[in-house]
Amino acid sequence: MSQICVKFESASKILSKRWVGLIIHQLLEGPKRFNQLESELNISGKVLSEKLKELEALDLIKRDVYPTTPVKVEYSLTKKGEGLDPVIKAIEVWSQNWI
Amino acid sequence: MSQICVKFESASKILSKRWVGLIIHQLLEGPKRFNQLESELNISGKVLSEKLKELEALDLIKRDVYPTTPVKVEYSLTKKGEGLDPVIKAIEVWSQNWI
Repeated sequence: MSQICVKFESASKILSKRWVGLIIHQLLEGPKRFNQLESELNISGKVLSEKLKELEALDLIKRDVYPTTPVKVEYSLTKKGEGLDPVIKAIEVWSQNWI
Repeated sequence: MSQICVKFESASKILSKRWVGLIIHQLLEGPKRFNQLESELNISGKVLSEKLKELEALDLIKRDVYPTTPVKVEYSLTKKGEGLDPVIKAIEVWSQNWI
């Protein structure tokens, strides 16, 4: 029981961080570039950059660099990040009904 | 978008609080008495009492008092609390696979 508890709380703590759920939500649509996320989320470049690093450290997203000119950088979900799809959908439904 | 964001974050913040997810998890099985929750969760009476008050204030659980001798008090989920069922199940699955 207490082990379920710890895991459960770690998971919900990740999602409760500012912007985290929303960035994952946007990346569930597919890989995106930095500028695209910036304008879709209406977030400052500085904050977005911090959040993307946090999500990368949690192994929820990955950063792919394509050696074109200019270099193309895309962010996408890892398998662990994709696994949050049902969680995010369920929270969305509940929060729209009850918050 | 920003409104979804606020609602989503409020919802996940509630669940990330210590014990909250787990108490709701136990009450999804049905109404329970204080002592029953205390022993199932292996939580101190003081903390459980605080948490139950928090959850009542959030309108996630209700406290039913039956005028028997001795008085019987039971805690159960409200509709809003029951609505968290799919969220909790989804977080459980994800955290067991990935945390």
